[in-house]
This record gives sequence, structure tokens and C-alpha cells, in this order.
Amino acid sequence: MNLNLKRERGFPEKEFESRLSRAQKILYQNKLDAIFVTSKANFRYFTGFDSQFWESPTRPWFLVVPVEGKPIAVVPEIGKDAIGNTWITNIKTWSAPNPNDDGISLVLSTIKDLKKRFGKIGAELGREMSLRMPLVDYMKLTQNLDSEIVDASPTIWEMRMIKTEGEIQRIKYICSIVSEAYEEIPNKISIGDSERDAARKLKKEIYERGADTVPFLPAISGKDGVSQIVCGPSDRILKNGDILFFDTGSTYDGYFCDFDRNFGIGKISDEVRRVHDTLWRATEAGIAAAVPGAKTDDIWNSMNKIIEESGTVGNSVGRLGHGVGLQLTEPPSHCQGDNTDISENMVLTIEPGIEYKKGKMIVHEENIVVTRDGPSLLTKRAPREMPVIR
Amino acid sequence: MNLNLKRERGFPEKEFESRLSRAQKILYQNKLDAIFVTSKANFRYFTGFDSQFWESPTRPWFLVVPVEGKPIAVVPEIGKDAIGNTWITNIKTWSAPNPNDDGISLVLSTIKDLKKRFGKIGAELGREMSLRMPLVDYMKLTQNLDSEIVDASPTIWEMRMIKTEGEIQRIKYICSIVSEAYEEIPNKISIGDSERDAARKLKKEIYERGADTVPFLPAISGKDGVSQIVCGPSDRILKNGDILFFDTGSTYDGYFCDFDRNFGIGKISDEVRRVHDTLWRATEAGIAAAVPGAKTDDIWNSMNKIIEESGTVGNSVGRLGHGVGLQLTEPPSHCQGDNTDISENMVLTIEPGIEYKKGKMIVHEENIVVTRDGPSLLTKRAPREMPVIR
Repeated sequence: MNLNLKRERGFPEKEFESRLSRAQKILYQNKLDAIFVTSKANFRYFTGFDSQFWESPTRPWFLVVPVEGKPIAVVPEIGKDAIGNTWITNIKTWSAPNPNDDGISLVLSTIKDLKKRFGKIGAELGREMSLRMPLVDYMKLTQNLDSEIVDASPTIWEMRMIKTEGEIQRIKYICSIVSEAYEEIPNKISIGDSERDAARKLKKEIYERGADTVPFLPAISGKDGVSQIVCGPSDRILKNGDILFFDTGSTYDGYFCDFDRNFGIGKISDEVRRVHDTLWRATEAGIAAAVPGAKTDDIWNSMNKIIEESGTVGNSVGRLGHGVGLQLTEPPSHCQGDNTDISENMVLTIEPGIEYKKGKMIVHEENIVVTRDGPSLLTKRAPREMPVIR
Repeated sequence: MNLNLKRERGFPEKEFESRLSRAQKILYQNKLDAIFVTSKANFRYFTGFDSQFWESPTRPWFLVVPVEGKPIAVVPEIGKDAIGNTWITNIKTWSAPNPNDDGISLVLSTIKDLKKRFGKIGAELGREMSLRMPLVDYMKLTQNLDSEIVDASPTIWEMRMIKTEGEIQRIKYICSIVSEAYEEIPNKISIGDSERDAARKLKKEIYERGADTVPFLPAISGKDGVSQIVCGPSDRILKNGDILFFDTGSTYDGYFCDFDRNFGIGKISDEVRRVHDTLWRATEAGIAAAVPGAKTDDIWNSMNKIIEESGTVGNSVGRLGHGVGLQLTEPPSHCQGDNTDISENMVLTIEPGIEYKKGKMIVHEENIVVTRDGPSLLTKRAPREMPVIR
């Protein structure tokens, strides 16, 4: 596989034709006449539609992907011209917002016009998805369709979990941008900065290197580790003995990286050093286990073994890594019982974490692509010794 | 009302007590035993929980707001510590992700434990909302609850449409940051820049002035106007005779501004000048119409009258402004038939647009708060003459 970094934005039409062709095989195998999707990531996957307008929750957007033929967009009138610039040619619009009928009769007639082969239509009803439309409108759809609506999330994840070369190139590119930005951090941050300063400086480094968006960039600090990894930055000032934890989901051309880095502030304790080393080794083991034919459970086991041996009071994260792509987090999950087959062209995070003492947590994370020959790093591997900021 | 700009982040506990007290009166009037919410904005409204973790769609988060007593958080274990830093004290957690039971049995028992007075529970089923959880899990909830689940969106919008003083201060602050950034733009951009350059420069100005996030910042250009306002920036180069359209939803402490600005590139045509002037006057009329006791339809009419007199081939936006707050767009909508009563402490956009020729659109936008004495601008009013970039 050619993993040269390309800086192009947007995919050629043949990329979408090939995604559609694979999707339609999967729809056929799953006996679905079509799926209809409403969410930003699924809409973009099939159309390439790149818009910030999803930030406005007022109007629903629909794409019907039939088992035969090209996708049909059913979108608010405000989107007609912009969708017309994608490879989609069948575009239906209504004047929105219209709370009495926000596209519902149009979606209904679009689905009814499809050839009925299986009598089943798939929608985003399941795992790691949600329907981006008012539920009262979805209920109207189900009541007026003579096809059954079933959960399409396993079908959609089967499509999206395996990345194309173009998707992998984009993730690799954003990983390289963020890897460089992280390396620059010790030159930019010092004791006395706040978490908010630190986050602002990292964000600046990432943007300057060419990222398109930085929707996720927590910066969290604590003495000898952090107590949580979901809120922050705050105005807390970085002090000697702290650990500064950064994580970021930044994007290029729609595709996310998702990896973290830890920095010691001033002098770090021997225990932190030991935990850091354990996590570094657990990450190595997790990466090595990500080979075609393995299961997510194997990846989890390979890391968990090292973590357990080293001692941990718990891991509230609930897993040790996951998929990444058009979303910051996607299936599969590296946890017991997930049981997903690891296949070529999956892009995964390897994310072991240890709470070595109540309220003292350290988490590592790298991004990899699974190739025929085994795992290949997309991120520049974190240094074995925790970098120190003075 | 005191609209002094405060730069503080986070609200005191009494703000949430007062929101809850008002919410519970509305729940009582609407005969609901509780509502449960799943979305970022609704969760933050009641708890103050400020997290970027919503970017990960893997785990659902629930908040149950009962008609009596404090809200109960039912959240993934990864969020326990962070939610503990809000004013919420009743926190239940489960180890997530767990596709077999991602919090559902816990939400179910939490709701069943509530005193049953009306036998009805509200959820985010309607207008300008969506349920942020897998629908298959929602179905399990409805099947196992002995209370009826009804649409809570009218109830929630009744709460959120009227802003508190603290909310208004934050919107005013982000409006002032972005107003200044827009004013700086003619000094930063020149003919030959791309739309992408222009967007990057504006984003930098906004961040440097203290915004927390800039999730929405299209920059779109076109000769004599733009053909659409939902996609961009692209790599298109700014040329003499273009109009450069910026719009942004930037945030401070969770609250959005949402307003646009237009810049002429080099020499602009007389027709553009005329349309710009019409829109400037339509904006004046829209602002003036936003008084307590009016309806959204009146605001629409006041603008539409001027637009129609001046001539337009259409407006694909579907309305001439809307509410703004924790979301970029919120109810009400200034359009025919919306029929919402305008009340003190609503924050609204006034957003007239004209497509004066096929594919040539210009849109203006300001943000206001409705006070007892009438409308009050939150944005620094756009100049009457379109600023020119050379």
C-alpha cells in the first residue's frame, strides 16, 4: 500500500463509486433495499459533502442509498446548490425549516419509489450512532412506510470500519501534523502556564501545520497524574510535579487522528516514571497484537496482561482503544467481549490507561493502520521517557 | 438589565438552582413527572458540564430532571469524576461502552424510582433536537417504562428560549470579540488570498481575542454575491468584483454568537451596493420589530416587506433569523407561521437575505437581545457601506 502523504482535499468520483459498489454488495448480503442516513459522518462517507452547517441542528438532511443505482439526496433547499457540487445528481429539496413536514413526505415518497426486493430499509438505529432528526418525524416515517425499518448500524460499520487508501492517507497526514505539533510543545510551554494557555498553544501549532479543524483538544493536569480525562482545559496553573495530559482529535479533509501525549512538569516521581514505562510497553504489545486474523479481544488482552502485572486500581475508560476515521471514535472497541475480527485497512487507536492510585491516572495512545503484513504506525511513536517541561 | 461584559467562565450554583426552579414550574404546568435529556446543549443547560468529550459518539450520557428534587446524572464511568465537579450530587455510573446495556437499565430504574404523579416522562423527540443515543436502546426504554414517554421539546424550548442575565452576558461577550475580529479583516486580507486563507485569518483574530471555540466559520466568495452559504472555505482565490461572505458561530463559555459580514473585493457593482443597502434597511426594520408582545411573524414581515419591494428571486434559507444560545441555531424562527411570542430576554439573530439574481445571494445578520424597552444590539452594527478589501 502506498502511504505517501497527499495534501489533496476531496476525493475523485471513482472513490465514491467504489465505496457505493462495496456498500451495495453489503446491502445485498444483508437483504436491505436501501439505507437512509441522517448524520454528518455517514452523509459525508457516501457523498463527500463537506459542510460546517451540521453545527445547526434546525434542519434534517437525508441521503437514501439504494441497493441498486446512485444515492438520492433529500435536503433542505438551502443545501441544493452545495450538494450539486458533489457527485450526487439526484437531489430533492424542500423549503426548510418547516415543522409540519421537514422533508418527511419527500423521504417517504423517495423510499416508496424504490424497487422493493427485500421489503427492508436500514436506518442509523444502533451502536455508536444516533438519528439526526426529530424522533416524532421518524415515527411518522415508520408508520407510513410499507417496508420494515431495521437497524443498519452493523451494516454501516461493516462498510466504514475498513478504510480505503485515500482515507488512510488523510488520517496519516493529520497524525503527522499533530505528531510534529506535540514535539514542539516543550519549547512552547513552561511552568506557570495554565492548562488553557497550554491548550491554546498546542491548537496554534496544529493549525499552523495545516489541520482543518481541532474539535477535540483537552489539556488536563494534576500532581502525579490526572483524575479524569473528559473535562478541560481549566485555568489551573501547571506546577512542579504535575503531569500535563493532552489529547486531540484534529482533522484533515474530514478525517480524524485521535492520540494523546503526556508531559512531566519539572521533576516527576519515580512511580510516574514506572507507570509511564509500563504503559509504553503495553502500547508496544497492543500494536504488535493488531494483525489481520486477530480479534479486538486479543489486542485488549495483550495490553491488559502488562497493566495487570504492573498493578492498577481500575480503568474508568472501559476499553483500551477503538476505531477512528470520519468520527473521533468508531467501532470496534478493544475490550473483553467486543470480539471484532481485525482486518487489513482498519485504522485503530491503541490506548492503554492505568489508574495507579485513586485519582492518579495516566493514559497513552497511538494510531495505527492494519496492513496485510501487520500493524503500521500512523503517529510518530511517543518517546520512551516522558518529555519534561521546565 | 446589567449588560457589563464579564469574562468569567462557569456559573454559580444559584444559576442552576434558578434554572431548575423555573424548569420545574414548566414541568408541573405540562404535567410531566420528569424529562430525561441526552444532548450536549440540554445536559449543559441543567448541569454546567463543559466537556469536549461529546465529540465521541460512542457512549450515551443521560440526565433525569424530575419535577421535584435535584437532577440525577446517569453517565459512563469515565465521566464520574468530572460530573462530580458540577453542582450535580446524585451521579450513577456504569462501565461503558457496553453494547448489551449502555446505561439503559440504570436510566430505567432511575425513572421508575421517581414519584409518579402524572405518569408522563418527557424526552428530546421534537423540533430542532435529536436523541443522542441508539434508537434501539430508546425503544427498550419505552417498552419497559410504565410511564408514557412524550415529546419534551416544546417544554425544553420554553425553558431555554428565555435567557438568564448570565447567558446574555456571555453571548454579548462573544459578539463583541467577533465584532472586533471582523473589523480587523480588511487589514489582514487582500486580493489573491484564497477563501481558506481568509477563514484561517479570521479564526486567528477570533481566538486571539479570547473565544473558546470556533466550530462554525464558513468563508465563501463569488462574483457579485455567493451561490450558497453552507459549504466553504475552498481554495478559490479572491478576485476583483467578488463578494466575500463570512459567517461565524464562535463560543465563549458554551454560548454562541451567530452573525455574518460581507466584504467587497476591489470594485463592487452598483447592483451589489443597492442590494446591500436594502438588506441594511431590512435589518434595521427587523431589529425594530423585535419588541416584547410582537410575534416572530411580525419580525419576518417587517423585513420581507423591504426585501419584496426591492426585488428578489428567492431565499433558500427558509427564514430571516432565529434564536441563538447554547446552540448555533435554536427556536424560534422568523418565518411565516412560526407565530412565537417575542418576550424579554430572548436572544435572536436578524438575518435578511436576498438572491437578487440566480446564484447571486447576499445575506446580512446581527444578534440582539429583547429587553423590556425593546431590542438591544449585541453585535457591533455592520457598516452601512460594504467594507472593501483591496
